[in-house]
Amino acid sequence: MKYGRVYNFSAGPAMMPEPVLEEIQAEVLNCQGSGMSVMEMSHRSKTFTRIYDEAVADLRKLMNIPDNYKVLFVQGGGTLQFAMVPMNLMKNGVAAFVETGTWSKKAIEEARKYGKAVVVASSKDRNYSYVPDCSDLDIPEDADYVYICENETIHGNTTFTLPNTKGKILVSDQSSMFLSRPVNVADYGLIWAGVQKNVGPAGMAIVIIREDLLRDDLPSFVPTYMNYKIHADNDSMYNTPNCWSIYCCDKVFKYLLSLGGVEEMARRNEEKAKILYDFLDQSKFFRSTVDRKDRSLMNVPFVTPSAEEDAKVVKATLAAGFDNLKGHRSVGGLRASIFNAMPKEGVEALVAFLKEYEENLGK
Amino acid sequence: MKYGRVYNFSAGPAMMPEPVLEEIQAEVLNCQGSGMSVMEMSHRSKTFTRIYDEAVADLRKLMNIPDNYKVLFVQGGGTLQFAMVPMNLMKNGVAAFVETGTWSKKAIEEARKYGKAVVVASSKDRNYSYVPDCSDLDIPEDADYVYICENETIHGNTTFTLPNTKGKILVSDQSSMFLSRPVNVADYGLIWAGVQKNVGPAGMAIVIIREDLLRDDLPSFVPTYMNYKIHADNDSMYNTPNCWSIYCCDKVFKYLLSLGGVEEMARRNEEKAKILYDFLDQSKFFRSTVDRKDRSLMNVPFVTPSAEEDAKVVKATLAAGFDNLKGHRSVGGLRASIFNAMPKEGVEALVAFLKEYEENLGK
Repeated sequence: MKYGRVYNFSAGPAMMPEPVLEEIQAEVLNCQGSGMSVMEMSHRSKTFTRIYDEAVADLRKLMNIPDNYKVLFVQGGGTLQFAMVPMNLMKNGVAAFVETGTWSKKAIEEARKYGKAVVVASSKDRNYSYVPDCSDLDIPEDADYVYICENETIHGNTTFTLPNTKGKILVSDQSSMFLSRPVNVADYGLIWAGVQKNVGPAGMAIVIIREDLLRDDLPSFVPTYMNYKIHADNDSMYNTPNCWSIYCCDKVFKYLLSLGGVEEMARRNEEKAKILYDFLDQSKFFRSTVDRKDRSLMNVPFVTPSAEEDAKVVKATLAAGFDNLKGHRSVGGLRASIFNAMPKEGVEALVAFLKEYEENLGK
Repeated sequence: MKYGRVYNFSAGPAMMPEPVLEEIQAEVLNCQGSGMSVMEMSHRSKTFTRIYDEAVADLRKLMNIPDNYKVLFVQGGGTLQFAMVPMNLMKNGVAAFVETGTWSKKAIEEARKYGKAVVVASSKDRNYSYVPDCSDLDIPEDADYVYICENETIHGNTTFTLPNTKGKILVSDQSSMFLSRPVNVADYGLIWAGVQKNVGPAGMAIVIIREDLLRDDLPSFVPTYMNYKIHADNDSMYNTPNCWSIYCCDKVFKYLLSLGGVEEMARRNEEKAKILYDFLDQSKFFRSTVDRKDRSLMNVPFVTPSAEEDAKVVKATLAAGFDNLKGHRSVGGLRASIFNAMPKEGVEALVAFLKEYEENLGK
């Protein structure tokens, strides 16, 4: 790779497209003739307003977002969203959750501060190595919404078939699969995603919310910052937003559009993931930890026969210039995150390395 | 200025030092030999951990922060802090506020969601053009803290003499005077500052909090993200922080240390402000709107004899390459924000321009 860059398999913050970084670099001291950096620019200035407007418009185009949905840029990441969703959407004080790993669990725990979080399906029995069947869930009559984490970054499963919510609103955490494949926004009441995995610099979540879910009548303890309607009414500028992240994300939106949009990303991501899974499935030393039908195209956890061997492989990959292959500290093993910005060549190089590693075992 | 840059008088996001921007630019594609951008780097990686550690250490050095205070990096800006402070510090449900302008007012309104916010002094009677005497305030016996906004960005006043809190904890919003002059951290229980005015890119507040104020026993409705203790216990990495902002802020910290620290910044800021105020005080057309003893060194609001004339001057300054001199939409007039990064030459050039403008009036 150019500039001494490495193949970085981090689960987030994660790789960004090199052409985007080159554009950003060129504008650090003077952005688009404004005489200043985006970092120095009033969020209410003409130049930044244009950047913001284009970011919203480009994302709308990429995801084909219907007119009755708002796009919001909110600070505080997933942790704030875990509270913000129930604060804003729980009217009856009940929600149904599909538990598929660490991130849906965190959402459940936080929601319990604000009401009843009913787990209607779970794959805990086999350590979240699959996505449970959600075609006929026992959803409480008074549930305000059904919540899923559409791609579990740590456990490496993904939801290819949306749950049958039986008419309830669907809320999805798309953080680690955002813009990696087409979704039909109209299937959801609310989609949110931390941008630091598949889009841009950390410090921001994107929220796509159906307008009729915006409410004025929130409980009095809800902080002003945590009312979606206030963000919506002020075009995400009630206070100073993370301007830099909005700017960088839009560069990525434009880049994805130039490549052919999320349809093309899905094609590339399927191709990349297949290279890695095919290798793991034929290997006698490495194996995938997730059921075939539910395997993430973005986060690929895998293991060797033992934790000691896992550690040896991680060390060897690092020495060979592949960064961040250690599994999450909560589950161990290895994990290759291969988001949109990971080139196919990176996956091929990793597989070639692992193949040689296996061949040399015991030699 | 180099790179076609302009003198940017924005109240925030605002100017950053050019040498810092040059360093940032050089590292966009490969930061310090890591093979990746800071934007792409796991927040738990060795390189980023070092960046974080240095940022905390450099700020501690700059502000001479005692060991029994924690430094936190929190997303959500001032708007989230307005709620986070009462959520964490109101034990008795009462706090005393000094009302000096828009930003202390916002803090008061938000605190009222969580308890009794008693205004113990106010300069509302003369449109916040001064700081009230706070030497003998009538502070409620059971007040948990006394709150000030140490520099009102919109109204342009600043608190040079801290209130006599009569033993209560002092909480200060230092957003628009952070690192502009020395403060004695031990005088405060909590200092917070949005970084987008005097430090780095928007999307982060720095919180400096005395350790004994960190609590486990918060009300159950407090979101996990809004518990200072959780941030403190996890070195601001309970979730992914705004890594880019931490990185850029530390570049600024290092730059300020290299110049001689906050003492040297105070000397420069006094010098710069004097140039502007001296001009305004002798002018027959322009005038400062703030009492002499309480004038901000950072935000200098001023007016002409009429709103029409104000608008004409703003237009003329913009045409002459001085950006963002329009006063805040809530008060009108003009405002020159001259934070740490504004060079003396910028202030001199502005004064020369205004002087000539005045001389040519009616010609």
